[in-house]
Amino acid sequence: MRKIGKTVIFDKPPKIIGHAGVAGKKEGEGPLAKDFDMIFEDTTMGQQSYELAESAMLHDAIIRSLSNAGVAPSSVDFVLSGDLLNQCMGSAFALKDLEIPSIGLFGACSTMALSLSTGAMLVNGGASCVVCATSSHFCSSERQFRFPLEYGGQRPPTAQWTVTGAGSSVVSNEGRGTEIKAVQIGTITDLGITDANNMGAAMAPAAARTISSFLNDTGSSPEDYNLILTGDLGYTGSQLLYELLEKEHNIKLKGFHKDCGTLIFDLKKQDVNSGGSGCGCSASVLCSHILKQMDKGILKKVLFVATGALMSPTSSKQGNSIPGIAHAVLLER
Amino acid sequence: MRKIGKTVIFDKPPKIIGHAGVAGKKEGEGPLAKDFDMIFEDTTMGQQSYELAESAMLHDAIIRSLSNAGVAPSSVDFVLSGDLLNQCMGSAFALKDLEIPSIGLFGACSTMALSLSTGAMLVNGGASCVVCATSSHFCSSERQFRFPLEYGGQRPPTAQWTVTGAGSSVVSNEGRGTEIKAVQIGTITDLGITDANNMGAAMAPAAARTISSFLNDTGSSPEDYNLILTGDLGYTGSQLLYELLEKEHNIKLKGFHKDCGTLIFDLKKQDVNSGGSGCGCSASVLCSHILKQMDKGILKKVLFVATGALMSPTSSKQGNSIPGIAHAVLLER
Repeated sequence: MRKIGKTVIFDKPPKIIGHAGVAGKKEGEGPLAKDFDMIFEDTTMGQQSYELAESAMLHDAIIRSLSNAGVAPSSVDFVLSGDLLNQCMGSAFALKDLEIPSIGLFGACSTMALSLSTGAMLVNGGASCVVCATSSHFCSSERQFRFPLEYGGQRPPTAQWTVTGAGSSVVSNEGRGTEIKAVQIGTITDLGITDANNMGAAMAPAAARTISSFLNDTGSSPEDYNLILTGDLGYTGSQLLYELLEKEHNIKLKGFHKDCGTLIFDLKKQDVNSGGSGCGCSASVLCSHILKQMDKGILKKVLFVATGALMSPTSSKQGNSIPGIAHAVLLER
Repeated sequence: MRKIGKTVIFDKPPKIIGHAGVAGKKEGEGPLAKDFDMIFEDTTMGQQSYELAESAMLHDAIIRSLSNAGVAPSSVDFVLSGDLLNQCMGSAFALKDLEIPSIGLFGACSTMALSLSTGAMLVNGGASCVVCATSSHFCSSERQFRFPLEYGGQRPPTAQWTVTGAGSSVVSNEGRGTEIKAVQIGTITDLGITDANNMGAAMAPAAARTISSFLNDTGSSPEDYNLILTGDLGYTGSQLLYELLEKEHNIKLKGFHKDCGTLIFDLKKQDVNSGGSGCGCSASVLCSHILKQMDKGILKKVLFVATGALMSPTSSKQGNSIPGIAHAVLLER
């Protein structure tokens, strides 16, 4: 790897040789329905808890991505995965029967970009094949982070809807696929947001920092990309991102940007307030909709910036702020 | 990197150019007192919560390790850190003022070996300098995983005492220090243990798997090492490890092995039942006591195998088993 500023450039870019994004019923009723590799009508996945259902969904996405890549689990050097659940139990139970050496990650909703960035650096450093994956589930997340599902609490307009879904990508030096040309590991950014119902505001400053730093390091501007795709800022966070980039960095992002949280749902019809969120949001959108468009040549150059709100309910109850982070992955076909 | 079986061999080994292990009051009354870089008599660290106290301790260990290495935070490519707290809030709040790109990890008590393994692979792949760190705090862990502190519940003989401590190592291609010659990322192993008060039994099978696999891949046996050091199996887990290795792999470990959980406390005098545990256990012992002995040439070849019980209270309450994992790092001076 070669570094310019905080951006890691790959002269021999690792490739995404297989990918799969799966989703739940509500996501399957949204605008991206036709692109998901699988839509699960029964989001309990036949399991006894929502947490195990999330694991089953992640396991399914990993197996599909390996199958699409034509790679056996035994040929994988490492799987890099994490999730939102306490002690990342979603990943632990998804991975335990795969018998692949496991690097556990925690990046909250930024996990898909964190796993792709770290995985790409490991492949560039000599690993032959890694799996990068993550998941989230509306029912396991909501009851852990906010209120019991049965309570049915009212949600403010800035609130986002945790996506039930998972995504997985197989990254290798060999084979054909979208190239990972550069990555940037994000720096934790905290402007003091304390509202657990306004994740977009907590994450937008981190996204602005990573995007401006990446554009600066690579001497590029938004019009050089087919798409700059953020993880799950939602509608509110996206507006804040435009404002921050324009005021603080003189970068006009609008017109070149989409957000996975606003792509995955129909915000007007599906009652999801500011849009989708959760690790599974950017993971399922990237690993199905976006990478399929890249495979078809519809998109050629995408800067994927997944954002994470490093929110702990314990910390929020103690009155602390919510630090944000955003990692960037430059994808080219 | 070059792989033999599941073991990654570094032909140009990354070096630990700075390290620091810090600990709390009880740990400072134990056998390793003279080796810790700092002992905090007040384990609240002047903070308003035990969680923020853990962050302050981790922050302190990172700064000390950077200072020992003579490296400024701005020269660090990545910091790799994680902890036991929900959503790794210990690390998030420790790192947020350091302004270093952050790779969040989750490996439970195996985190020190996970961060060193992943960090060493990144340095071998071209990063110039990374920080590998982790922490735990008795008060933040016990109330999250088991009972409120005030309850004072009785502890069975197999229970371990979560260490209040943190450790940090600075890894680089340049400079002088203990070399990381090889690493092995562990595979999740689950023999069905469900008792949250018997972490040693949940982790011993993973330790046996990683140790036997590492010895097999490298064609070595226990007598080739000055020390095979496990993370925090404690007394109970260590006995199980000897039994598993002897019965299933015909490897006699006793005599060549120590465990950080039994080193850090005086098991007879300090009322800690089976010994110490927590990410901070192996981190503080390795980054102070062990690496200082290596710097002095007392130990020349150490196989460090930190073990993690991937236990979530949610999962345990749902009756699920506790998967284990163990990562290995070969250290040579």
